[in-house]
Amino acid sequence: MRNFLSLADVTDLDALIQSGLSAKANPFADEQLGHHKTIGLLFFNSSLRTRLSTEKAARNLGLNVMTLNVGSDSWGLEMEDGVLMNGDKAEHVREAAAVMGRYCNMLAIRAFAGLTDRELDYKELVMNQFAKYAGVPIVNLESATRHPLQSLADCITIEEARTKSTIMPARPKVVLTWLPHFKPLPQAVANSFAEWINARAAAGHVEFVVTHPEGYELAPQFVGNARVYHDQDEAFAGADFIYGKNWSSYTQYGQVLTQDPSWAVTMDKMRLTNQGKMMHCLPVRRNLKIADEVLDSPQSLVIEQAANREWSAQAVLKEILSSLR
Amino acid sequence: MRNFLSLADVTDLDALIQSGLSAKANPFADEQLGHHKTIGLLFFNSSLRTRLSTEKAARNLGLNVMTLNVGSDSWGLEMEDGVLMNGDKAEHVREAAAVMGRYCNMLAIRAFAGLTDRELDYKELVMNQFAKYAGVPIVNLESATRHPLQSLADCITIEEARTKSTIMPARPKVVLTWLPHFKPLPQAVANSFAEWINARAAAGHVEFVVTHPEGYELAPQFVGNARVYHDQDEAFAGADFIYGKNWSSYTQYGQVLTQDPSWAVTMDKMRLTNQGKMMHCLPVRRNLKIADEVLDSPQSLVIEQAANREWSAQAVLKEILSSLR
Amino acid sequence: MRNFLSLADVTDLDALIQSGLSAKANPFADEQLGHHKTIGLLFFNSSLRTRLSTEKAARNLGLNVMTLNVGSDSWGLEMEDGVLMNGDKAEHVREAAAVMGRYCNMLAIRAFAGLTDRELDYKELVMNQFAKYAGVPIVNLESATRHPLQSLADCITIEEARTKSTIMPARPKVVLTWLPHFKPLPQAVANSFAEWINARAAAGHVEFVVTHPEGYELAPQFVGNARVYHDQDEAFAGADFIYGKNWSSYTQYGQVLTQDPSWAVTMDKMRLTNQGKMMHCLPVRRNLKIADEVLDSPQSLVIEQAANREWSAQAVLKEILSSLR
Repeated sequence: MRNFLSLADVTDLDALIQSGLSAKANPFADEQLGHHKTIGLLFFNSSLRTRLSTEKAARNLGLNVMTLNVGSDSWGLEMEDGVLMNGDKAEHVREAAAVMGRYCNMLAIRAFAGLTDRELDYKELVMNQFAKYAGVPIVNLESATRHPLQSLADCITIEEARTKSTIMPARPKVVLTWLPHFKPLPQAVANSFAEWINARAAAGHVEFVVTHPEGYELAPQFVGNARVYHDQDEAFAGADFIYGKNWSSYTQYGQVLTQDPSWAVTMDKMRLTNQGKMMHCLPVRRNLKIADEVLDSPQSLVIEQAANREWSAQAVLKEILSSLR
Repeated sequence: MRNFLSLADVTDLDALIQSGLSAKANPFADEQLGHHKTIGLLFFNSSLRTRLSTEKAARNLGLNVMTLNVGSDSWGLEMEDGVLMNGDKAEHVREAAAVMGRYCNMLAIRAFAGLTDRELDYKELVMNQFAKYAGVPIVNLESATRHPLQSLADCITIEEARTKSTIMPARPKVVLTWLPHFKPLPQAVANSFAEWINARAAAGHVEFVVTHPEGYELAPQFVGNARVYHDQDEAFAGADFIYGKNWSSYTQYGQVLTQDPSWAVTMDKMRLTNQGKMMHCLPVRRNLKIADEVLDSPQSLVIEQAANREWSAQAVLKEILSSLR
Repeated sequence: MRNFLSLADVTDLDALIQSGLSAKANPFADEQLGHHKTIGLLFFNSSLRTRLSTEKAARNLGLNVMTLNVGSDSWGLEMEDGVLMNGDKAEHVREAAAVMGRYCNMLAIRAFAGLTDRELDYKELVMNQFAKYAGVPIVNLESATRHPLQSLADCITIEEARTKSTIMPARPKVVLTWLPHFKPLPQAVANSFAEWINARAAAGHVEFVVTHPEGYELAPQFVGNARVYHDQDEAFAGADFIYGKNWSSYTQYGQVLTQDPSWAVTMDKMRLTNQGKMMHCLPVRRNLKIADEVLDSPQSLVIEQAANREWSAQAVLKEILSSLR
């Protein structure tokens, strides 16, 4: 693996999931792999799980970790080529990426969508410019349109829960449901989850369903062949996994079209499922998106899912490190 | 030791002080103890000594250290249970604590008093919620009402100075004095110092006296059996240690009732003492709270006291690490 | 070497440059040198290259690294002695420096010029107060008037390029040129570069020329014996190295006297040189100061120059560490 920007960079998803589970069972098995190597973590946006889990995974692998908060530690970066830089961006990504690539053996980057210009967000300028100019592998810590380390952790969590369960079918039903929120959030987590679970569905591991109010259709390249329902109850029927997430509209880009509270997940909703497991990438606003009674029930996987972020990061960093040797 | 939230978590204070002095004499004696273990440092508020000394102590013990600045690195945390999270807090402590507890073997947290709602501050919601939900030991890096790592460093500093001195009595007189300041500051350092020095007094190691203007009475559970004077000169008479600190009113909660400059410590005041040593937890506003002539004199212990923060942290982390094995 | 505040702290510049080149060839040769030792990095201002390259160099040497961002992680520091601290500065440098000096074996500090009071800036209060009170070696990570780690990296870069080149004379011509910018920037990089290259010129290694519009004269102690031109084309004639930098006026202190775009470096300008190499300390605003065509040409050394920051830092930290043993 050279870069880890999206599912397209993964050659064997089954093996990557198993690598994550192996890391969880034996975190320090590969701690010589990162010896004398450095990862740079670059944050254009806030982070809790991603920051801590990636740093932890890197150290499990013996990597030196250097973190830079763009904006507070340093200054804004210009991403567009060929411009006269007389605005508020003091440095161009061509220099920033190339220089950080000289100090670090790989760079991991978080840069959210702006949610004002769909075309701009969906061309993934930050990731692509860093990949072009850094000269070292780039890891996506959530970009404008994708969050693949989250999706890998989600696959690990589903695989783990499926294996442990005595009631799930061999091919569990996974439902991605939109949840209400008053703020416009990116589509990245939902996009990425759909992309990865579609791959799992195509390989016969799961059945995949998406449900959201009208107007919240995800981009077609992410929805793929998933069945889409506008009736949440119908989608939940017999589900083994409910994956909740809010996102703003893709078609009316970046807008909040409804905050309909009936889309929040309650225990009544969960009773429609096959004793389904509740998943969410966190942070989750309790009682706005998911009720306390669900999050605090044994059906919730959200903590285990967040814990698995460490192992998804470790699986990816290990594969990149192996390719560097 | 499971948690280190207050003096109540300490079973043998004498041993803990000696452990700090041992660490000072031989900082790397236990550097295998933290191997393959991680401490998370979580700051809701600014920090200099606490941040650096705790990080340093952790590394002396071989721990991996991960630091998170809540607010700048991540986002606000909701501490109250059962609320509809439709405000400015994006994540609940139930998730944040539980997740960080999966990445870290222990968490150390700084969260100051809000100084507007006494009942809220004194129920120590942040520390107690983290202790409840993290699933790993919690270390108090200064909470709403206490600063026990400071108090342990203070005890170490007093023990060290007493041992070195040729003029101090076997049972030195320790005076906690209020100092003037124009901003409302928490009671945490004063509360904690009183709590710990009362324990030292009860064990016959020191005599303890508190002095402050009327209206600055500390909460009764912290003052304990200490003698309280409203006349600073009377309190200083024959003192071996002067411990200066400003705090806002507990009775008229969070208010600045006076800024009377005559409460500042000058060399004239120090001449009332038994060649007393001057202590302050820092930062100290020079000439507002303590005169240059005192801070720059050989009677000042403030730098040694701050240096001892490293050893108080190391003693506590060592004891927690030992209980994890 | 005790401190590294300016060229005056360097006893053998040739040896220091060679030490940097050795570190580049073999980064981990001295990784035992920093064992059980800690460097504190203290930032009063933003940083990208300096932060990452110094941290990386320190880790190459086996040092423990602790970073503090003054202002966001902690609070403002009072630098003047003898004041009544009733303003916005909560701590005095006497305490802050002394305490950090107890936690760290050396401190590295970045503190830019204020650009409002020339006398204040040029007395280098921050560096000098830390050097006075820390009790441990101080490394300048860019101060009000100097940036010596940059200058050492510049010397390394020039030496490296000269050695590799088949067309440069034994004593290459180095031109420091002012570049246009709309914001007032410090003179530190230009001052320091002049100071160091003057030393290289005095030792017969280079010929040194400075060019800038009238009113942008650097302080005489930095210009030294360099020839100064107000005609940029004349200065560029036959040059082997063009070192571009903007600075605000020293004589009309901190002011922007002109933004004349004809001072920007284009390929037409570069054709006046002896296939000259383009250098800049970065960040550089593309097309405002230097044209894309120059920065993206093989004549640009800016990435190699930034990469050499790691080796200049390593050479300096190694020399200080050696003196600590």
